[in-house]
Amino acid sequence: MPAPLEFFFDFSSPYSYLLSEKIEAVATRHGRSVAYKPILLGAAFKVTGMAPLVEVPVKGDYSRRDFERSARFHGVAFRMPTPFPVGTVTAARALLWLQGNGSAKSVPFVHKVLRAYFAEGRNIGEPAVVGQIATELGIDGAALLAGAQEPAIKDRLKKQVDEAIARGVFGAPFVFVDQEPFWGHDRLDQIDRWLQYGSF
Amino acid sequence: MPAPLEFFFDFSSPYSYLLSEKIEAVATRHGRSVAYKPILLGAAFKVTGMAPLVEVPVKGDYSRRDFERSARFHGVAFRMPTPFPVGTVTAARALLWLQGNGSAKSVPFVHKVLRAYFAEGRNIGEPAVVGQIATELGIDGAALLAGAQEPAIKDRLKKQVDEAIARGVFGAPFVFVDQEPFWGHDRLDQIDRWLQYGSF
Repeated sequence: MPAPLEFFFDFSSPYSYLLSEKIEAVATRHGRSVAYKPILLGAAFKVTGMAPLVEVPVKGDYSRRDFERSARFHGVAFRMPTPFPVGTVTAARALLWLQGNGSAKSVPFVHKVLRAYFAEGRNIGEPAVVGQIATELGIDGAALLAGAQEPAIKDRLKKQVDEAIARGVFGAPFVFVDQEPFWGHDRLDQIDRWLQYGSF
Repeated sequence: MPAPLEFFFDFSSPYSYLLSEKIEAVATRHGRSVAYKPILLGAAFKVTGMAPLVEVPVKGDYSRRDFERSARFHGVAFRMPTPFPVGTVTAARALLWLQGNGSAKSVPFVHKVLRAYFAEGRNIGEPAVVGQIATELGIDGAALLAGAQEPAIKDRLKKQVDEAIARGVFGAPFVFVDQEPFWGHDRLDQIDRWLQYGSF
């Protein structure tokens, strides 16, 4: 069984959302799965000195336009959320807790949280909203939020962020295919070819 | 006659080189031409506070890998040049001088200078190299270098940089299709669709 694609992302990253809606179909076509690995982009930005995209003068304005146009281009429902960005530590820890429990709802949780924020305008920065989304998936929301507060889970997220930075992750989405790094939703065509040929 | 695509670029930008090798075929398919508009990226970076890509920690290393992989992906000859980046004010002014004279060799000059740097490792930061490349195209290299020093040409480049910044150009390549902005060589598929449908 070939290794899954490693998909490092932040729940508050628009391009992560766009790629999350497309990557599984490509992975599946090549007999692969996708391992979703939540991180906190703020920590990565400290390493590079980068700022959140929409806060960069001029480039930020273009980016908002590009989020929406790229969503239309790929046929993905998108509405720029406010507030933006939001803190995603609860959502990230909740996902790690689900994954740690071997929950079959881990991947549906990823998609539902991202869609809640980027298509439905729900504020996923609020723990109560994360819990509510989980409940809608048939997950025990209270147990999830409690689990997200466990020291072992907090530690796991911190380690995952550190690992990502150590492996060169500086933005999101950031995908590794058998150690080959691809940054950005706009590298999906290259990922597809890499999966096809092993390398190119 | 529909308006040409406006292609803002810096002669020292790898992604500008990659897109320059691909965009004319797409434009032509939709009955369009490409107007090459040289700028100096350093001036644009001052507005956004951005640094040259390869100077950004971590991201710079990825970028070098991505230049080469993206070139292979698109079937474009590429060899990371040294020194990199180089000053491109002479090349930019030379192009403006050719364009101002209505030279039919303006577009071939763009391609030959970019290929000289990114495929052949010639240092296009040196005026003598720019003159030599022009000579190889059958242009009078000495006249070109003299023309590039004319106050009117210097002023034209300055105005073009200012215009680009005023229109939101913060990086390169930056293409306008009927005022719609597209940043990056990886927006060619969106440019193609925009040309097809007017908008999407």
